[in-house]
Amino acid sequence: MPFTYSRTVRFQDTDAAGVVYFANVLAMCHEAYEASLAASGINLNAFFCYPRIAIPITHATVDFMRPSFCGDEQKIYVTPKKLKDSEFEIEYEVFTVERVGKEIPEIQETCVARAFTKHVCIDSAQRVRSPLPLEVMKWLSQWSREGEKVFDDLETLL
Amino acid sequence: MPFTYSRTVRFQDTDAAGVVYFANVLAMCHEAYEASLAASGINLNAFFCYPRIAIPITHATVDFMRPSFCGDEQKIYVTPKKLKDSEFEIEYEVFTVERVGKEIPEIQETCVARAFTKHVCIDSAQRVRSPLPLEVMKWLSQWSREGEKVFDDLETLL
Amino acid sequence: MPFTYSRTVRFQDTDAAGVVYFANVLAMCHEAYEASLAASGINLNAFFCYPRIAIPITHATVDFMRPSFCGDEQKIYVTPKKLKDSEFEIEYEVFTVERVGKEIPEIQETCVARAFTKHVCIDSAQRVRSPLPLEVMKWLSQWSREGEKVFDDLETLL
Amino acid sequence: MPFTYSRTVRFQDTDAAGVVYFANVLAMCHEAYEASLAASGINLNAFFCYPRIAIPITHATVDFMRPSFCGDEQKIYVTPKKLKDSEFEIEYEVFTVERVGKEIPEIQETCVARAFTKHVCIDSAQRVRSPLPLEVMKWLSQWSREGEKVFDDLETLL
Repeated sequence: MPFTYSRTVRFQDTDAAGVVYFANVLAMCHEAYEASLAASGINLNAFFCYPRIAIPITHATVDFMRPSFCGDEQKIYVTPKKLKDSEFEIEYEVFTVERVGKEIPEIQETCVARAFTKHVCIDSAQRVRSPLPLEVMKWLSQWSREGEKVFDDLETLL
Repeated sequence: MPFTYSRTVRFQDTDAAGVVYFANVLAMCHEAYEASLAASGINLNAFFCYPRIAIPITHATVDFMRPSFCGDEQKIYVTPKKLKDSEFEIEYEVFTVERVGKEIPEIQETCVARAFTKHVCIDSAQRVRSPLPLEVMKWLSQWSREGEKVFDDLETLL
Repeated sequence: MPFTYSRTVRFQDTDAAGVVYFANVLAMCHEAYEASLAASGINLNAFFCYPRIAIPITHATVDFMRPSFCGDEQKIYVTPKKLKDSEFEIEYEVFTVERVGKEIPEIQETCVARAFTKHVCIDSAQRVRSPLPLEVMKWLSQWSREGEKVFDDLETLL
Repeated sequence: MPFTYSRTVRFQDTDAAGVVYFANVLAMCHEAYEASLAASGINLNAFFCYPRIAIPITHATVDFMRPSFCGDEQKIYVTPKKLKDSEFEIEYEVFTVERVGKEIPEIQETCVARAFTKHVCIDSAQRVRSPLPLEVMKWLSQWSREGEKVFDDLETLL
């Protein structure tokens, strides 16, 4: 089950072409990733700020389907996936949410962008690959499509 | 009655000193301002993006009391104040919200920053001062300390 | 011949992990793209800000080889490539430049990131694909590896 | 003698109103401050990133005289001033530089913004005020209007 993050496009996200600046879409996706970590009980400051076990992004890709505008209500679906013991990737689907129809109001979701980030877990001091920490395994089991499978791995670990 | 905006400090807000980058505090305040406008029914895209009547910031000031960290839960109190027919200022008080105490949990709010922005209303085409639009007068009456007084002015206008 | 852009990593580019925030690497690449356009005599404000013929980014990808730190001197090599009459892509290679060696000082360039952006030319009003403008063809002929070939196309156009 | 920093306004600096986003002007000023430190031989990574002696900004203020546009060539004059043994402020004057006149070309500098930041030197571990480090005293003597006076203090210290 993906994690869902709601967010309003802010003036600062935009550029002089009147739409969201391209690299800010990746920053919005990272914001959704942070919210998914917090929703799993992970302390963000300890996780991101000079940790012993760090999980930096090694690759990112993004496709833009439609422009986003200041004030747009958006939903970002965050779906992580374990790739290796020391590696996972995240898929982000960014939708603009609009209320359409007058008599029978309806919610219409339009996909505006789709992104991926790949993360590799390393021991910061020794600069070598390290297995994903337990709290990240729990986060993966909670939000990935193969949640149960990851959870099996998790139980083996415990 | 000030407008209250809740927000989590994001990784992107921080810098390599491990805390929120100073200029990003003003961006967070502007984000709270945008939310207060939206809460008054103002369309953000029409308001900010190449409008005929623009209300640019002419002055900003900010005091930093304490550093903010990635993941901090914050509340920003937004209090606008009409200065002239074509001018208002906004006061922002930024608080970090923590749950303290084990047996009897308590919410503790610590002021981390205080900022002001001054805005002047202009006719974009003619580059001359222009009276504040009606929707901005309504927003002022809703969130300013002197809400009722602004509302009197508003009624005179209508 | 690629366009070369020199740049110092700024404090604002970094995050609380002490290195450049991942999405800012793409913003640095875009900055290098802007410099390459200006070097070809293109007016940046007219080019980017609400133009009739717009060339938005439809796809971006980036690989991170090494972290970058505040104060790092970097060189970004910008190599555009025409894909279709209405489409081009840009390759960016980001290097950190260091002076090493005491007796015989040497310049050492280390690749820290590699990125691509894909751009599609559209008529903003009609929202349909449009051939690349002449000034962009000139820019392509100046900085692409196949500079001469693009120039042939260019001469056919003139 | 103030430090002079040259910089082109980038697309990322702008917002959907077509001009530089207000808080980014302060970030541009900080960029100029960083360049002035580097010009005095200060290592930026050691200076900013988790140092034992930190000099955080406690106050910032900025006045906007004119909008800035993507592609604008700017000059920022950085003038630091010692306030106390543990405190300094910096004045920033931001000018847009244009070439005007056809027959006799002239350089015209227009002031677009003016900012101040106040910095207090602290011992990061003990969270108490600390005298400014020697390298900062040297930087002050190099770029402040009262350069020589600071230098006298400096000589007393040595």
